Amino acid sequence: MRVTVLSGGVGGARFTRGLLALLRERLPDGSGGTTAQVTVVANTGDDMWLHGVRVCPDLDTLMYTLGGSVHEQQGWGRRDESTRVADDLAAYGLGGEWFTLGDLDLATHLARTALLRSGLPLSEVTQRLCARWSPGVRLLPMSDDEVETHVVTDGGTLHFEEWWVRHRAAVPARAFVQVGVADAAPAPGVLEALASADVVVVPPSNPVVSVGTILGVPGIREAVRATPAPVVGVSPVIAGAPVRGMADACLTAIGVATDAAAVARHLGLRADGGVLDAWLVDDADAHAVAPLRAAGWRAAAAPTLMTDVAATARMAAAALDLVGVAP
Amino acid sequence: MRVTVLSGGVGGARFTRGLLALLRERLPDGSGGTTAQVTVVANTGDDMWLHGVRVCPDLDTLMYTLGGSVHEQQGWGRRDESTRVADDLAAYGLGGEWFTLGDLDLATHLARTALLRSGLPLSEVTQRLCARWSPGVRLLPMSDDEVETHVVTDGGTLHFEEWWVRHRAAVPARAFVQVGVADAAPAPGVLEALASADVVVVPPSNPVVSVGTILGVPGIREAVRATPAPVVGVSPVIAGAPVRGMADACLTAIGVATDAAAVARHLGLRADGGVLDAWLVDDADAHAVAPLRAAGWRAAAAPTLMTDVAATARMAAAALDLVGVAP
Repeated sequence: MRVTVLSGGVGGARFTRGLLALLRERLPDGSGGTTAQVTVVANTGDDMWLHGVRVCPDLDTLMYTLGGSVHEQQGWGRRDESTRVADDLAAYGLGGEWFTLGDLDLATHLARTALLRSGLPLSEVTQRLCARWSPGVRLLPMSDDEVETHVVTDGGTLHFEEWWVRHRAAVPARAFVQVGVADAAPAPGVLEALASADVVVVPPSNPVVSVGTILGVPGIREAVRATPAPVVGVSPVIAGAPVRGMADACLTAIGVATDAAAVARHLGLRADGGVLDAWLVDDADAHAVAPLRAAGWRAAAAPTLMTDVAATARMAAAALDLVGVAP
Repeated sequence: MRVTVLSGGVGGARFTRGLLALLRERLPDGSGGTTAQVTVVANTGDDMWLHGVRVCPDLDTLMYTLGGSVHEQQGWGRRDESTRVADDLAAYGLGGEWFTLGDLDLATHLARTALLRSGLPLSEVTQRLCARWSPGVRLLPMSDDEVETHVVTDGGTLHFEEWWVRHRAAVPARAFVQVGVADAAPAPGVLEALASADVVVVPPSNPVVSVGTILGVPGIREAVRATPAPVVGVSPVIAGAPVRGMADACLTAIGVATDAAAVARHLGLRADGGVLDAWLVDDADAHAVAPLRAAGWRAAAAPTLMTDVAATARMAAAALDLVGVAP
């Protein structure tokens, strides 16, 4: 069974970890693995050059989470992290201290930067980094081309990470601009992973700056719309609030209500020109199911808080059940 | 009084520290400083890109030594260094572990790389990094252009640092090639510092790959030859052996004996087309003084082991005395 996931950082990584647990449980191949192939297409719009190294927050969060080395409470970065380099770097007064540059994380950034500088594309670099972590999925950047999400505010334009991490998304965003996206091409394997999937999943990632950015790469939205596989999404909004992070600030900026059904309508039904066939909401939003069904959606409610891997696996099962895909 | 020093790493840095101590003692300006201006022109031929960051071994050794943060026993790198990043980076299996990439040192490399990537030339970057360390000298790279010393061996060509650090100079060198040197220009201020100096000093640095590389930048040798200031060198060879490091391997490669007088003759007397007027040897090589004098050199013997700052200051005084420059 081939599953393709369009993922941002923490939410997508945790969802995928649950999905893998489900597949391992349901599809034992005798070796402790599964007969499923999961491809994760990761948002790279949050990537940035910081102090001369290339930082890819979502790829790293996926790699660490699926590779078993993530800082569990934090959701991103490495366990047992330290900041010896960053503390010393601050003494040079170059700024940039708002972004935590952990020592162990820095090792990843250095390895990535070295490989990129040697001329390898990000997809190949990612594969080499994953050789260390064995994430159990094929991890693909959405594009090998540099795309950077910038945030337009009344005070000027910021890199998304600066807006998100430094300002905690508290400065009102007027618009998001994906610099470079018009000239970006999907990374090798992305379109094929969509075309050949048995199911495409949109995990509870930020619908604007994670999923929206991936879909903005020319060719990807079209491939999602064209795939013969069903496309099922899980709401990142529960009871009118983002499960994690500040997705509400992103939704507000583009005029979408922070509401499970509103997010579904924003991403849209494939029959109506959108990218989804089905939408899983939390039990707290069960009231949204009937109206969505009336509008042509396959919709259901289930517990969607990813409190642990087992709960996340059950939620992944509910998503697959919704589109009739039984691993 | 203006002193210009053509320096490699450890030997040049320690010498300059002693010189500064001498000048502070002899030329008190009431503020604890001196009325002397010391410009250090540093070899950058050992520089390299490693894991995507720019490493400048000699500039850093000078900056740390003169700024009071050097690892004293080691002679290079920072005190209280650790290798958390490098240890983790090794798990990616990219190689390069032969070069110690300390955490604190890495902060310098990241700051430098960030500034270089922002478009600043190395001389400006160096000035900004020095703002943190207050080395008490004007520290200039020999050039803003990338020049890299490569070592030709029977087994192929290596970057100098790989030959020096990884192979401990034990693989016979057939030749040294300064890649990029023909197109390199002296960094801003280098030629002026030579032309306006009251004395030019060649400290006990490697005569082949440190001093030789600096002199190889088009215009620098000519400026040393043309300066009205006397030019005095201190032998890096004592009693037929390099004081430190493996300079003998470099000298052998270019057919020069590891001998104090032979090194002097290799660098040459200005009257004969070389770059020196005077040569200070160690007391152990006092026998070399008379023949050098007979050949037109100003020469003397003195204790030249840089055992501590006071001893080094006395040695710097002996060098200046030799050319009649009294601070």
